[in-house]
Amino acid sequence: MKTIKLTLAYLGEQYNGWQIQPRQLHLKTIQGELQKGLKLLTGEEIQVIGAGRTDAGVNALGQVAVFRTCSSIPYDRYPEALKGVLPEDIIVYKGEMAKDSFHPVKDAKGKWYRYYLYTGKFPHIFFNKMSVHIKQKLDLAKMSEAASLFKGNHDFRSFCVAKTEKKTFVRNIKECKLSKHNNFLILDIYGDGFLHNMVRIIAGTLINVGIGKLMPEHIPWIIEAKDRTLAGPTAPAKGLCLVKVDYEIKENVFCKAENLDMPPLFY
Amino acid sequence: MKTIKLTLAYLGEQYNGWQIQPRQLHLKTIQGELQKGLKLLTGEEIQVIGAGRTDAGVNALGQVAVFRTCSSIPYDRYPEALKGVLPEDIIVYKGEMAKDSFHPVKDAKGKWYRYYLYTGKFPHIFFNKMSVHIKQKLDLAKMSEAASLFKGNHDFRSFCVAKTEKKTFVRNIKECKLSKHNNFLILDIYGDGFLHNMVRIIAGTLINVGIGKLMPEHIPWIIEAKDRTLAGPTAPAKGLCLVKVDYEIKENVFCKAENLDMPPLFY
Repeated sequence: MKTIKLTLAYLGEQYNGWQIQPRQLHLKTIQGELQKGLKLLTGEEIQVIGAGRTDAGVNALGQVAVFRTCSSIPYDRYPEALKGVLPEDIIVYKGEMAKDSFHPVKDAKGKWYRYYLYTGKFPHIFFNKMSVHIKQKLDLAKMSEAASLFKGNHDFRSFCVAKTEKKTFVRNIKECKLSKHNNFLILDIYGDGFLHNMVRIIAGTLINVGIGKLMPEHIPWIIEAKDRTLAGPTAPAKGLCLVKVDYEIKENVFCKAENLDMPPLFY
Repeated sequence: MKTIKLTLAYLGEQYNGWQIQPRQLHLKTIQGELQKGLKLLTGEEIQVIGAGRTDAGVNALGQVAVFRTCSSIPYDRYPEALKGVLPEDIIVYKGEMAKDSFHPVKDAKGKWYRYYLYTGKFPHIFFNKMSVHIKQKLDLAKMSEAASLFKGNHDFRSFCVAKTEKKTFVRNIKECKLSKHNNFLILDIYGDGFLHNMVRIIAGTLINVGIGKLMPEHIPWIIEAKDRTLAGPTAPAKGLCLVKVDYEIKENVFCKAENLDMPPLFY
């Protein structure tokens, strides 16, 4: 029995999220497609565990998935072999051996999420499936100031789907920053873990700051209040992307995605 | 009666090309969607003429379409109005008044096409619908040399769908060049007109040069032979994009697409 760690990218548009829905097996999921593909290759009923349960419509550039198998397929052959059996919008680009004790969620030290906004007059045809078009004029200075206020150790109950049951809502956000590339506005956020919809609610809140519905100084107060209704709306799924999952502690958290071979815009 | 000129972008993936197929009206086309949308807005049966009849699967960033109407909708309101009635993968971003005599094909002075190759180890998930993934190692110096040999006034019968009936196969290619951006390899080609599949056959021929099946010095000889079987294969539709149609003669042909607001990769 070997433990294999895969790194994969996908477009979420056609899927009902990462996680198989046991009571709705007709719904296509990334995990489901991956397990189907691995069964074709290995002949085994394989159980895949993902590092992040991305929601329906959310994209990934560096999701991590782990499974155990008795197959003799060499670990580094999985990307090429899976290419032949997976749909075009799921691409496994790395296969590695992992320790039997490796757990993609429990062992994760940090996750990098990115939210793509496009602020051109009309949506950009090439990026319309992975970015959210905002027509209103945005105050970038205020948004940047607000973004920085999410950094640190906070109880993020205001930025989580209401009625979630959790032992703790405290998460550590190591970096949270905005950058502009032409008319793209990109929110990069790095933390030790994220609550359900947390990045999308932070994005929605920052949009509200950008259009003047909220002020940067409201952010600490909204965090403090632990009340979902005070934060902004949940921004659409398609703008969100799981960029990378780290299994060791990183200093320079946003500069190590070169294995994804991003074009200039998406380094 | 007014003549309106629209500039639009689209993803060709879901469409059977630009042109309505009169005997197969069930097939979705860009022209068909546009005419349907304009009928909803104006109440008129509108006939749209496009500058380039892009094939099934081909993308556009700057297609031009013209129609005549009695509607009182101001010309510059069409982009926003059409946004409400067109599918998400067709975006009209400019509406202008045109002279009644304006013809988008006959009056065109130049067209800029682009072909996107991606040479990473695996396809890039965000660009897989608008680029063609090439796994083989490509000799870029040889491809660039070959690309430059297409420039000038030539009979391009070798680079046209066989059995095409035409008065003349002579076209003037003003620029033809390759550029590399990370693992993207981009072919830009500008000419006064193009034969059916011409850019895709040139792209397929340049790929053959890149992998060593052809040498740059074969290009003049293939052009001279006027024989489709000597050129390379027709490269896939999804890599091709109609970037811009010019109605005045341009000196610096590849630097005037800023209205498309391209991200860094696609300037």
